[in-house]
Amino acid sequence: MVGCVIVKDGKVVGEGFHPKAGQPHAEVFALREAGDLAENATAYVSLEPCNHYGRTPPCTEALIRAKVKRVVVGMVDPNPIVASKGLERLKDSGIEVKVGVEEELCKRLNEVFIHHILTRKPFVTLRYSISMDGNISDGLGKGAVEFGGYYSQLLQEYDGIILSSSSLNGCSCLPLSQEPQCKQPKQMIVASSSNSPVKLPLLDQNADNQPIIFTDKSTEVDSGIARHGIETVVLDELRLGPILDYCERLGLCSVLLDVRGFCGIFEEFVKEGVENGLLQKVVMEVLPVWNGSREVVTVPAKNFDTEVRRLAKLQSRMSNGNHLVEGYF
Amino acid sequence: MVGCVIVKDGKVVGEGFHPKAGQPHAEVFALREAGDLAENATAYVSLEPCNHYGRTPPCTEALIRAKVKRVVVGMVDPNPIVASKGLERLKDSGIEVKVGVEEELCKRLNEVFIHHILTRKPFVTLRYSISMDGNISDGLGKGAVEFGGYYSQLLQEYDGIILSSSSLNGCSCLPLSQEPQCKQPKQMIVASSSNSPVKLPLLDQNADNQPIIFTDKSTEVDSGIARHGIETVVLDELRLGPILDYCERLGLCSVLLDVRGFCGIFEEFVKEGVENGLLQKVVMEVLPVWNGSREVVTVPAKNFDTEVRRLAKLQSRMSNGNHLVEGYF
Repeated sequence: MVGCVIVKDGKVVGEGFHPKAGQPHAEVFALREAGDLAENATAYVSLEPCNHYGRTPPCTEALIRAKVKRVVVGMVDPNPIVASKGLERLKDSGIEVKVGVEEELCKRLNEVFIHHILTRKPFVTLRYSISMDGNISDGLGKGAVEFGGYYSQLLQEYDGIILSSSSLNGCSCLPLSQEPQCKQPKQMIVASSSNSPVKLPLLDQNADNQPIIFTDKSTEVDSGIARHGIETVVLDELRLGPILDYCERLGLCSVLLDVRGFCGIFEEFVKEGVENGLLQKVVMEVLPVWNGSREVVTVPAKNFDTEVRRLAKLQSRMSNGNHLVEGYF
Repeated sequence: MVGCVIVKDGKVVGEGFHPKAGQPHAEVFALREAGDLAENATAYVSLEPCNHYGRTPPCTEALIRAKVKRVVVGMVDPNPIVASKGLERLKDSGIEVKVGVEEELCKRLNEVFIHHILTRKPFVTLRYSISMDGNISDGLGKGAVEFGGYYSQLLQEYDGIILSSSSLNGCSCLPLSQEPQCKQPKQMIVASSSNSPVKLPLLDQNADNQPIIFTDKSTEVDSGIARHGIETVVLDELRLGPILDYCERLGLCSVLLDVRGFCGIFEEFVKEGVENGLLQKVVMEVLPVWNGSREVVTVPAKNFDTEVRRLAKLQSRMSNGNHLVEGYF
């Protein structure tokens, strides 16, 4: 996700963004709109301009040809192989270059891309809903799954979603984003022995986007699933690591680990994910409820710096009436 | 807490607020500043002007004498005995009156006063810190207790604070607000048998504001406490209700129930408080940590409307780097 704005004498003369892979980059659209006004102008780009021939010619050459005077870049290309080559090319041709303006925001915009290009592993976000007295809920807040709700929006932002089969009990279909014309995530359902025999909702309803079932040998899965030709991956041991490896092989760059109730296998997944560094982000929904019946473990203050893992960049936000707290592992 | 602004021809000509009980009301200060300009002006007041002779003459008479044309009121007086009498007096004298402008904000400003005048019981706020995975912490977030921190600010806002003696283990003094020239809350320490023998930090350090100890017969309290002449209330049963009754007799209109770890007696207090409607507000601090070791009870979604208590007016806010979620029972 890259944007470019061309400014001449304090006025915006061109704007562009990169619509999707394979299509021209942001700079191309912005320069096209600016035309001759790009000469001696300043180009602001959220990501370092590319310097390689792909499906489009390098953006560095386009900027040089348009005779822009100055290029302001949010962040260098995270790919260590190409990083700073674009900047060097611009500088060599006499263009003034400034780097790292609003870098934090630019990095957040492409957090999935950056993580994936550096690690070759999916960017994993843990999502859950919690009551005010600290219980993980198996339900979501009002309107969260509907159009405009944060959950509906999250679904379209991720390439895949991992769900427990038990969280689908009583559901008539798999969770789908309600945003218009959105991309749906690959649905991955974990069926563990604690829920067997596993029954799933109408899996044949959407033949374009069939889910994948992850299970192990000890789990009895509804025989209808095989009949519907749904891909079923039988793992030696149901753990998060092997599932994420499979996601990587499927080309999923981002995965939402959707935890509805910290029960059984998903409690293990979260533990494994935190301990092995498999989780990158947390989206916690705070529900406006007080449950009351709970067993509580207190976090001893003295252990904060040793046994307890700190989350970075914590942020609160309201989304369509739901209260979210987001942070990074 | 009442404020008044006098506006003439679109310009503010007078401002005032009620500094403290026994001193003149907001309208008096605002009218004094406006002088002759108050004639035909509009007076905006957050609370209905008083219509009774107390230590100062009624504000209604002052407004009538100043010949204001219009009075805009945030909320009527919550005291049912006097409610709307001031508005009637203004209307009877030919002043145009509008009521309920920004009523919600005006009510929040005086939530303690309103609750107390209607119920004659203290307004009780439950405060605690919670990790991202739902553990109640016995420590607070960074900077919370220091000058400008939310905890330091909370302390000056409440007439009293209820603490567990166990939360004072290792502390060199009782929690005090660090705000300049602030009012300190009455410190009330609950010493239960699960912590006996109870030892308290330097209780004689601040002779002006001695704490009160609440305990029961089965608890062994450090003999030094009696020597220091500290008030010790021995209850038949350590419960929140009788402690709050005692607060009421002491004239404390607002009490902070400060829960550091949901352990022992305070877990019971919270349960009792929620079930018996003794708690009005919640201030939850979300700590940027992941604890990991916990026993978790899941909130079943189907019970949301029956067994689970809903909180109203949930709001997230950042305070000096700490993340707070506030709501009302």
